[in-house]
Amino acid sequence: MSDETTSEKLTELAKRRGYFFQSSGAYGGVGGFYTFGPQGAALKGNLEDAWRERFALGEGNMEIDAPTIMPEPVFEASGHLAGFDDMLIECPECGTSTRADHLVEDNTDYEDAESLPIPEVEAVVAEYELACPECGAGLAGVAIEEFNLMFATSIGPGDSQPGYLRPETAQGIFVEFPRLKEYARNTLPFGVTQIGRAYRNEISPRRSIIRTREFTQAELELFVDPADDDPDLSAVADVPLTLYPASEQGADGSHLETTVGEAVADEVITDPWIAYFLGVSRTWYERVGVDMDRFRYRQHLAGERAHYAADCWDAESEIDGNWIEIAGFAHRGDYDLSKHGEHADERFTVFQQYDEPRTVERAVVDPEMSYLGPTFGGDAGAVVAALEELAETDPEAFDAETVTVAVGDDDHEIPVEQTGFALEEQTEAGEHVTPHVVEPSFGVDRTLYTVLHHAYSEDEVDGEERTYLALEPTVAPTFVGVFPLQRDDDLETEANTIAATLRERGLSVTYDSAGNIGRRYRRQDEVGTPFCVTVDYESLEDEAVTVRERDSTAQKRLPISDLAETFTALRSGSLSFDELEG
Amino acid sequence: MSDETTSEKLTELAKRRGYFFQSSGAYGGVGGFYTFGPQGAALKGNLEDAWRERFALGEGNMEIDAPTIMPEPVFEASGHLAGFDDMLIECPECGTSTRADHLVEDNTDYEDAESLPIPEVEAVVAEYELACPECGAGLAGVAIEEFNLMFATSIGPGDSQPGYLRPETAQGIFVEFPRLKEYARNTLPFGVTQIGRAYRNEISPRRSIIRTREFTQAELELFVDPADDDPDLSAVADVPLTLYPASEQGADGSHLETTVGEAVADEVITDPWIAYFLGVSRTWYERVGVDMDRFRYRQHLAGERAHYAADCWDAESEIDGNWIEIAGFAHRGDYDLSKHGEHADERFTVFQQYDEPRTVERAVVDPEMSYLGPTFGGDAGAVVAALEELAETDPEAFDAETVTVAVGDDDHEIPVEQTGFALEEQTEAGEHVTPHVVEPSFGVDRTLYTVLHHAYSEDEVDGEERTYLALEPTVAPTFVGVFPLQRDDDLETEANTIAATLRERGLSVTYDSAGNIGRRYRRQDEVGTPFCVTVDYESLEDEAVTVRERDSTAQKRLPISDLAETFTALRSGSLSFDELEG
Repeated sequence: MSDETTSEKLTELAKRRGYFFQSSGAYGGVGGFYTFGPQGAALKGNLEDAWRERFALGEGNMEIDAPTIMPEPVFEASGHLAGFDDMLIECPECGTSTRADHLVEDNTDYEDAESLPIPEVEAVVAEYELACPECGAGLAGVAIEEFNLMFATSIGPGDSQPGYLRPETAQGIFVEFPRLKEYARNTLPFGVTQIGRAYRNEISPRRSIIRTREFTQAELELFVDPADDDPDLSAVADVPLTLYPASEQGADGSHLETTVGEAVADEVITDPWIAYFLGVSRTWYERVGVDMDRFRYRQHLAGERAHYAADCWDAESEIDGNWIEIAGFAHRGDYDLSKHGEHADERFTVFQQYDEPRTVERAVVDPEMSYLGPTFGGDAGAVVAALEELAETDPEAFDAETVTVAVGDDDHEIPVEQTGFALEEQTEAGEHVTPHVVEPSFGVDRTLYTVLHHAYSEDEVDGEERTYLALEPTVAPTFVGVFPLQRDDDLETEANTIAATLRERGLSVTYDSAGNIGRRYRRQDEVGTPFCVTVDYESLEDEAVTVRERDSTAQKRLPISDLAETFTALRSGSLSFDELEG
Repeated sequence: MSDETTSEKLTELAKRRGYFFQSSGAYGGVGGFYTFGPQGAALKGNLEDAWRERFALGEGNMEIDAPTIMPEPVFEASGHLAGFDDMLIECPECGTSTRADHLVEDNTDYEDAESLPIPEVEAVVAEYELACPECGAGLAGVAIEEFNLMFATSIGPGDSQPGYLRPETAQGIFVEFPRLKEYARNTLPFGVTQIGRAYRNEISPRRSIIRTREFTQAELELFVDPADDDPDLSAVADVPLTLYPASEQGADGSHLETTVGEAVADEVITDPWIAYFLGVSRTWYERVGVDMDRFRYRQHLAGERAHYAADCWDAESEIDGNWIEIAGFAHRGDYDLSKHGEHADERFTVFQQYDEPRTVERAVVDPEMSYLGPTFGGDAGAVVAALEELAETDPEAFDAETVTVAVGDDDHEIPVEQTGFALEEQTEAGEHVTPHVVEPSFGVDRTLYTVLHHAYSEDEVDGEERTYLALEPTVAPTFVGVFPLQRDDDLETEANTIAATLRERGLSVTYDSAGNIGRRYRRQDEVGTPFCVTVDYESLEDEAVTVRERDSTAQKRLPISDLAETFTALRSGSLSFDELEG
């Protein structure tokens, strides 16, 4: 077999067999944009359906579908406008733009250059005399700039509004929280999912469909009551996990083989919701064909986490010796909803009714306006507001003879007896709670790439080298190939009838009558089609066909009348080819 | 019942029940962007699946999934950069931008102002003294500008490339034709579909989700051999059609009730592929719930057609007395592939092998260089090229004593005997053919809107007004509601078990135990849920439940053990509620 990496061979196969290829190739292509061909689009659809089944329907969550263009105020609130940047260094000689943190990581021992401040990265570039990867010109002394990764556009003509292509599907959920909570009848916890495009104007897109500028995310935002919404872990307690905790990520760190239940008991995973989703998704990844020997959950290092994330773990898959992130599991706290609550005109809270009304003590003021009016004139209203705020935030300030409040640049001192300060008992039915957000966020393209890469196989059959994709029958884009043994009206009629019957059952069928049967098998092997059916002359007599399994190349003779039911069971995973008699 | 239009009532219901609502409402909203809530996203998904089943899988076409951002050269070739414009008039007083053609159509007798040249529209605005619809300021004399409807962005940092959000999914297919034809093994006809987002920066988005700035298309590009790929019309010949041909679109025009077969025989529809897809889609629209009494196909008027379109028909649905376009069926000729072939670096043709090699006569030249060299010096090469072109395009020019060719500004006269002109017989195995394109293009959002609007119903039940959506069971976002009669552990356990069983069969189930049973029915009526199951105390004895049908409110008692199979049949349409015993 050749010296190429599996990734290189996969890229070639993906193009030839219709999985994916760089877009607009006839115009020279543009970095970071890929088109999914017929097999790729079908595999992607199957993965999305499997995700939807598990994380939306299976968890009782709501799925929504929001626009990809959103107006600027959304990203002012979310923080993306100010902070969704990469470090850009532009070569003064050839003009090539490079990510400064990648340049540092690729050429020094620094491992997490993204978390360093810009002056420090500039210092490292100078110290190591790093050079432009394109032309070799020295970059020491070149200023590094923040480059915002959002694609910008304008909405409407005239005094147009700035808009951005969403960098994550999540914002389309957060921004609609005031409406979504109504659909959930104001009851926590509830979850909202979205599968859709997201966009990041990467400085240097690379590694095929791993780092692209337009990609598909499958995200779940679970809104939980910070006080008491803990998950039931019993269903996932025994799921095995391969963990790479932050504490192990030093020089000689190693993976920790454990289970969800143990990891929570040992406090390796501190948040039970995160633990729950690691368990659920581990089972899901295995089901769709990720190799569990090449899969782990890695905890974010403290410096790597978003400042609002209490804890964060990535699902990672191994691709040609490198670990790549394919999903993130973050406890985002109340960051998102609080931010939108501050910036927008609606409430981003849920009113949580108490089991029974509670009596609480509130500090209130009732200022003597006949004193404040003459004393403060036009400022009197502002003084009242300041007193109300002070009573709420620091009632003990009223323990003295006078209190001092600031209005504009002036400090005003007011005798407490003029403020009408009092502690009152109030009855409250409940309270406005800002839910916390637990977010499992999946990269669909990276999952697809992992599934293909882990399925890529080579062996020798009848003395010939063979390439095949060992895709799981549940997600394989083409489920069965139906062939007449050779071009013959009777064989073709029978084969076409079988194909039509299987299609009616919702199976993805390819019909092929071209070339010798071995070549047709090889073609389906490369596509990853789990089963092939061959109609031969005997079939016309005994109403049976040869069914061949892709990985083993084993063949069994099955009655035509059983095919639809057998294949439906093989597709759902309730039956395996080994169990079949024939 | 109220004076509101159905559209107004639908918009309110859509928001309340989770079908759709304007996006980013917490930030004041932005015109032309809508979010599909849980019911809307599910209905949209069901419509997309139904379309895929019929137009991709059902026709044996390939589905692809391309990026929404495409580089500028694609749109230079497609003509969108130069010509995808609307007429914009900006009020000098208040700055409001308005579509000038809409302003004219709304306030004069002009019906198709979009097809008029700008100076003429400016003259109409002046003549009728049209005013700004926002502030009433006169617009006579205000210049009308072309406004390009593509959303622009830039790709990458530094010397960035211009990119645009695709205005139609079609370009993502056309631009990849050189690769897609390989997947089709270079055999015509073949079809490629795509379901995805498209974007148009409308000057004045309006009418809910009818005219938005971001929307979903389902497009099929069928590549046919212009010489001999005609469809088999037998399967659709008897499909009834309501047509509104161009010839009828005068003052007293009327609809023509016919069939696909008759319309082709009578040459009302001239292109058989268009006729085929009108028949296929008519059946499809009926299946997903479009009211066939409020549906027609309208032929484009000559002035309305794109210049390359040989014939074009729109599917239109009636919404509150207005006809709106919900799909277009165009024969685009070789326009798209020829344009990309001219602009791009690859061939946008298919090599069509002849049944047997053909002998053709070719005019060739073999100029005498010992004459041309001395005579034309540095121009000799250009003269040879000009002679070769002339022989190919106008061999009869060589019938005279001399031929004349132009090189730069000079005409050169050459004795034919020095050109080596001859007619040669050549054998050719086939030829490079630029396929023609037949395009059925569906607006998914508008289809969804039509389905909801035509399903919107009001009646009176038990003396109370009732609103319900009479959605087809095959596409209804929620298929069945399962209710315990009241809050009771035994009833709830049984109801939950039933819900879980039905979910396992892939049915969309909602579980509701809140409020009285009548209110729960009303809620599902408004959502359009076709069936409800109520578990009562008798159920615990007789293992049967009450099943209620939405439109008739009729109830039948069915064994719990039959539910999964019965509902699966009701969902697929193979069984109707009336046929059920119980």
